[in-house]
Amino acid sequence: MPQKNKPPRGKNKFIPASLSMLEPKLRDIYYEFYKEAYRPSSLDFKTKELISIAASLLARCEGCLDGHVKKALQSGATKHEISDAIAIAIGINAAAVIDQTDRLAVRLELNHFEGLQHGGGPAAEHKS
Amino acid sequence: MPQKNKPPRGKNKFIPASLSMLEPKLRDIYYEFYKEAYRPSSLDFKTKELISIAASLLARCEGCLDGHVKKALQSGATKHEISDAIAIAIGINAAAVIDQTDRLAVRLELNHFEGLQHGGGPAAEHKS
Amino acid sequence: MPQKNKPPRGKNKFIPASLSMLEPKLRDIYYEFYKEAYRPSSLDFKTKELISIAASLLARCEGCLDGHVKKALQSGATKHEISDAIAIAIGINAAAVIDQTDRLAVRLELNHFEGLQHGGGPAAEHKS
Amino acid sequence: MPQKNKPPRGKNKFIPASLSMLEPKLRDIYYEFYKEAYRPSSLDFKTKELISIAASLLARCEGCLDGHVKKALQSGATKHEISDAIAIAIGINAAAVIDQTDRLAVRLELNHFEGLQHGGGPAAEHKS
Amino acid sequence: MPQKNKPPRGKNKFIPASLSMLEPKLRDIYYEFYKEAYRPSSLDFKTKELISIAASLLARCEGCLDGHVKKALQSGATKHEISDAIAIAIGINAAAVIDQTDRLAVRLELNHFEGLQHGGGPAAEHKS
Amino acid sequence: MPQKNKPPRGKNKFIPASLSMLEPKLRDIYYEFYKEAYRPSSLDFKTKELISIAASLLARCEGCLDGHVKKALQSGATKHEISDAIAIAIGINAAAVIDQTDRLAVRLELNHFEGLQHGGGPAAEHKS
Repeated sequence: MPQKNKPPRGKNKFIPASLSMLEPKLRDIYYEFYKEAYRPSSLDFKTKELISIAASLLARCEGCLDGHVKKALQSGATKHEISDAIAIAIGINAAAVIDQTDRLAVRLELNHFEGLQHGGGPAAEHKS
Repeated sequence: MPQKNKPPRGKNKFIPASLSMLEPKLRDIYYEFYKEAYRPSSLDFKTKELISIAASLLARCEGCLDGHVKKALQSGATKHEISDAIAIAIGINAAAVIDQTDRLAVRLELNHFEGLQHGGGPAAEHKS
Repeated sequence: MPQKNKPPRGKNKFIPASLSMLEPKLRDIYYEFYKEAYRPSSLDFKTKELISIAASLLARCEGCLDGHVKKALQSGATKHEISDAIAIAIGINAAAVIDQTDRLAVRLELNHFEGLQHGGGPAAEHKS
Repeated sequence: MPQKNKPPRGKNKFIPASLSMLEPKLRDIYYEFYKEAYRPSSLDFKTKELISIAASLLARCEGCLDGHVKKALQSGATKHEISDAIAIAIGINAAAVIDQTDRLAVRLELNHFEGLQHGGGPAAEHKS
Repeated sequence: MPQKNKPPRGKNKFIPASLSMLEPKLRDIYYEFYKEAYRPSSLDFKTKELISIAASLLARCEGCLDGHVKKALQSGATKHEISDAIAIAIGINAAAVIDQTDRLAVRLELNHFEGLQHGGGPAAEHKS
Repeated sequence: MPQKNKPPRGKNKFIPASLSMLEPKLRDIYYEFYKEAYRPSSLDFKTKELISIAASLLARCEGCLDGHVKKALQSGATKHEISDAIAIAIGINAAAVIDQTDRLAVRLELNHFEGLQHGGGPAAEHKS
């Protein structure tokens, strides 16, 4: 499968291995954290991959995104479940702007429009 | 429970409702997206809340983080499962830096240290 | 008006002036850039303040946000116009996630759902 | 016009439509938000496109940036007006760092250099 | 010294220790990475703290910023050296916007103003 | 050396100079800030380049990263010193997530695991 982080191999172009700019000792500690975070635990593998997809989108790690979408599909995640993870990432990135305007309204004591009252539904609870 | 986005209520301080700076039409469409993203689907409620915790951390939405951690706990998520979601967020934010140095090594044809070979283990696969 | 970046003045607490951690020479150059960016030009003052509101939200500069919302209101911007600027900031932060999933679909050759065809309307053109 | 998000079409490479990884219901709600945000309102089309350029730069949405610069040019925005929007984005991303050092100086009670006094000019007002 | 992340201690308010939401095994691996990154090496302690100040500003880690500024001062860093690190953070956050507009100009083949020619000076080399 | 921001020159493709989308007056002020930030001062050139590498990674400025890594190598920085700067960038991006969970634990009064006690070692001091 094509990957942006694998440049065309024409002319035997040298491709360094991942983590090659980090000293071996630091690379190994990072590796250990990775292994521990993804080892079998109360959350199953598929759930961890779906969490990783949303996290990769918001951390803007293209290499991570490719890897975790592939592994989510391998672990049996459906396109609907992947869409659910993406939808949460979209909604929370939108909410990150709204959260700032909610705090702004408090700081400047602005009351521009009738907002959603807390208790009025799940949307109001997004940040309650 | 104390919340940073709820300033002290001394002196009947006015607290605008959430989303009060957005025109009602736009507020309602956002609300609909929110409801659709969190309505019952193939992913259960607890899984969606764990995805939301990692997403809130990386989108830096403090209000979202408070709300989704509370709802994760209400939906029965254990402290171990919440730790798992946080660990993924930490690992992927670290990997977002590593991904850039991996691409840098390719662009500048640097071969500083022996990296992790693809296929050598789960860490190398983080971004493969 | 209350501002988060102005701590309570009880006990004559020392409040350093803005830009106090930067050497005067660098501070002055930044100041000059600021003056040049906001001096009268083909764009009027109100338009520049509305652009600044969206920019402050996405750069997550709380101090900037407070200042530019106040100046937008002083320059005659209505609550509807401020809502328009906020809505664009929300929509583009959401689109920043979607843009990544569009590129992902190309890289991994995924065809999960029927997307919006280019030419089918303004939404498809958001990123065309 | 060349676009990074349109890979070379050699060999009939499959190009998914935009938003193809999101379920149709969610895609349509996003689409509605988009249409509502850009429909005719008190702000004219050109102003909305200039706001969108600054927002795209700070949200790092490359696809959005391309689309909105094209539409700004189509709506009659001059290169000077586009430069104004870009300058605001640059200045506010710089100010986002300065805002943090201003708060830091308050928290740690540091008084390293003589800052800009509030009231001393437009630069001090950037975040007042 | 006052710290934002230490809430007022009135009423014996419970203050959890740092890293308390992460399982001990993961916490310890993070701790090891930290120790390894800051142990004596070819770079001296002061230099590492100055790098950490710029990194904290751009990663927007307020707790890190407070800690590393204090340690920079303890290690003998002058206010001029701290200003240098801050200036680099400001300049590069501004350049992160400029870099996007440079690539945009290439993608859309725009030639709005006479830019800085490569080789013309240090500014042009910022991103060369 | 190959650079992503220099597209293939086939067919005499036009390559605009850097900063070409900004009016000359603003471009020159930015240029002056750049020159002042990197002129000889108490910090030597190599140290400034190492700070710039960490800053470029966290500001996600690919063009800056390429330029500053090249200049770091030209100024005599070793691969170990560059690894040190990268390790700090990785550690602080991870800590930026941890800092949020530490504050969350205070806001919601959660005490999930035994954290690192302040004073217990350098890791606890990362954000103290």
